[in-house]
Amino acid sequence: MRKIVADLHAELVRYNLVAWTAGNVSGRVPGADLFVIKPSGVSYDELTPENMVVCDLDGTLVEGEHAPSSDTAAHAYVYRNMPEVGGVVHTHSTYASAWAARGEAIPCVLTAMADEFGGEIPVGPFALIGDDSIGQGIVETLKGHRSPAVLMQNHGVFTIGKDPKAAVKAAVMCEDVARTVHVARQLGTPLPIAQDDIDRLYDRYQNVYGQRSPR
Amino acid sequence: MRKIVADLHAELVRYNLVAWTAGNVSGRVPGADLFVIKPSGVSYDELTPENMVVCDLDGTLVEGEHAPSSDTAAHAYVYRNMPEVGGVVHTHSTYASAWAARGEAIPCVLTAMADEFGGEIPVGPFALIGDDSIGQGIVETLKGHRSPAVLMQNHGVFTIGKDPKAAVKAAVMCEDVARTVHVARQLGTPLPIAQDDIDRLYDRYQNVYGQRSPR
Amino acid sequence: MRKIVADLHAELVRYNLVAWTAGNVSGRVPGADLFVIKPSGVSYDELTPENMVVCDLDGTLVEGEHAPSSDTAAHAYVYRNMPEVGGVVHTHSTYASAWAARGEAIPCVLTAMADEFGGEIPVGPFALIGDDSIGQGIVETLKGHRSPAVLMQNHGVFTIGKDPKAAVKAAVMCEDVARTVHVARQLGTPLPIAQDDIDRLYDRYQNVYGQRSPR
Amino acid sequence: MRKIVADLHAELVRYNLVAWTAGNVSGRVPGADLFVIKPSGVSYDELTPENMVVCDLDGTLVEGEHAPSSDTAAHAYVYRNMPEVGGVVHTHSTYASAWAARGEAIPCVLTAMADEFGGEIPVGPFALIGDDSIGQGIVETLKGHRSPAVLMQNHGVFTIGKDPKAAVKAAVMCEDVARTVHVARQLGTPLPIAQDDIDRLYDRYQNVYGQRSPR
Repeated sequence: MRKIVADLHAELVRYNLVAWTAGNVSGRVPGADLFVIKPSGVSYDELTPENMVVCDLDGTLVEGEHAPSSDTAAHAYVYRNMPEVGGVVHTHSTYASAWAARGEAIPCVLTAMADEFGGEIPVGPFALIGDDSIGQGIVETLKGHRSPAVLMQNHGVFTIGKDPKAAVKAAVMCEDVARTVHVARQLGTPLPIAQDDIDRLYDRYQNVYGQRSPR
Repeated sequence: MRKIVADLHAELVRYNLVAWTAGNVSGRVPGADLFVIKPSGVSYDELTPENMVVCDLDGTLVEGEHAPSSDTAAHAYVYRNMPEVGGVVHTHSTYASAWAARGEAIPCVLTAMADEFGGEIPVGPFALIGDDSIGQGIVETLKGHRSPAVLMQNHGVFTIGKDPKAAVKAAVMCEDVARTVHVARQLGTPLPIAQDDIDRLYDRYQNVYGQRSPR
Repeated sequence: MRKIVADLHAELVRYNLVAWTAGNVSGRVPGADLFVIKPSGVSYDELTPENMVVCDLDGTLVEGEHAPSSDTAAHAYVYRNMPEVGGVVHTHSTYASAWAARGEAIPCVLTAMADEFGGEIPVGPFALIGDDSIGQGIVETLKGHRSPAVLMQNHGVFTIGKDPKAAVKAAVMCEDVARTVHVARQLGTPLPIAQDDIDRLYDRYQNVYGQRSPR
Repeated sequence: MRKIVADLHAELVRYNLVAWTAGNVSGRVPGADLFVIKPSGVSYDELTPENMVVCDLDGTLVEGEHAPSSDTAAHAYVYRNMPEVGGVVHTHSTYASAWAARGEAIPCVLTAMADEFGGEIPVGPFALIGDDSIGQGIVETLKGHRSPAVLMQNHGVFTIGKDPKAAVKAAVMCEDVARTVHVARQLGTPLPIAQDDIDRLYDRYQNVYGQRSPR
């Protein structure tokens, strides 16, 4: 899990989702009340399986020589309150953060959004770092929502997944659709997709896509 | 053909036309009712000639260990109905998809568009994945049209070519002109090009350009 | 000169000024009525000193196995009519081409523009490929103008320099300022720079900057 | 210090803050009235510890075979007048320069801005190169301001830090937030962050973040 989480940060860099050290991936340790997360303030080039840190579900450092990411409390809150979640990602990716700065959900006007997010990408509350406020905002927004991504107001994006790779994919796709819908809106109003069609697309993508079953 | 198709996916990555695994190239096998296409849900880094899959013109898997791309039915429909087509590409590239989200054709206001597309890049219908709807929309829009690219409403781009490389070139150029015309439109109205001039440019480019004949 | 011209194309790629094979560099052969230019329709990865082609000042192929760039006539016209020019570059770079599509000069609102271009970047006429129209438009616009770059209407950019490297630098800086001024204009009106200040900046940069004299 | 300064220029390239040779990093030599700076007009690929130049605090060349950056006088003025500054960076990065072209401060509407800049990023005066005007404008704007970055009108960005790496980080983050706030503003008005919350975020980030103390 240390290696998986360390390596996945390269995807954040590859897709230009992060600048300097802002942005982090974590992954729940299977079968234990622990998760692996990026150390705080360490650059992406220097991440290795060895310098990743391990925390318990209260966000307390259990193993590692570095301090955990300053976003650790938010990750921990998600793992404590959403047992189905195995990976969490946080970024300040440009287009998603721009929607977040306006406190505006991204409307579902692309079939790829219907596939991956099942509708709009919602906005969570403004919350200060330092206690459970951010974690609460994430969980309250995403519980019972199809979207694995939430735009935290004036802040950035948190995404969840069954494992860290799924959460990274959601972060990549969130920025991709945030940018495309932004660009579409710059010159007019994107055409809506009917709710029935969104439902059909979401259902199909979640159940059929990928290598689950050759056809 | 497996190697050609596998390698051409690197161009989609190089030109930032694709995020994660969204986007695929296929190529008709010369002299057979078969085409090679990307496997579904496999990342671009992991594509090899060996893991590409072969389908017949109904889109049924003929050879390969992975499931074919979820867009296989659309590719197959194009090969069945446009015998002159030897390559098909699908992407959700940002600027082209933004025009598609508004259901708006890209007007021909650049000489490079006149060269490559012979006029505007047209919009195809909204269509759900799962049957022949997307393929029909592509073929109905592109049959008898100069453009090798169609913007499928709320979805993305499909391009065609005499071979996979030509279809990839059309996908690259489609995003390039979609972006430039978008940027031009952000601050005003691009100047039109007279139809006669578009015709002359298209005719010249299709018949003279490249290494066909030294002059 | 073959090597210089071949290598400089890598700068067009590095700065994202070109897509596929659109865009070319040429350089006058010192002491001869000849210039080296990119072969037509060959990808940037495949350019070598050996496959560059040599033309006379009428644009006629003198040496080389490939056909010269389809823009050769325009380059040749510039070399014939501007003896001080030692390098020419042509691109369809996005932001510069967007200004060109609107037929709008880029106003001088950045000190870097005053330095490099000495004022606005002007627009040249709409001209069809195939005869001397493009070359004439370039020369008529740039003769007696400080700017080494011209935005050819609905087309793209041509830049000139004392040698090919200077022309490439002008192409890179042209796109850079085209983008910055575009972005500035998106949210309001950039502040003008007084003509006196533009003159002072231009004079200083042309005469002092770089490694000409240590101070 | 020569090596540190030479290497840090790679970060300007990596984050696309610079085109051609525009942009430079300098670092104060600890315990001496000297600083190391980029040589003028040398490309980023060719920078080595050996070809960096050393100047005194009047900006006079003390050591080195090349002329110092044409922005040396501005760096020198900052070192003379802000003894706490150990590093200075100058760029023409696109989005920050666009705000600078309009003479508009970047409003603090992102928590990451509150963290790093403690409020808005201010605008400094229009100033010509050649004397101490630019240096004076930087120092007058940044003295007593939380922001380590200033947008010099119609010009670009200068950032300061306790060492060159901190100044480079400020330059990277300045462009990042300049872009995100620009994008946010394109489609509406970003939500403000209360001054109290900005103060709390700034205080926490400056005192807690990073590897200073494991918690």
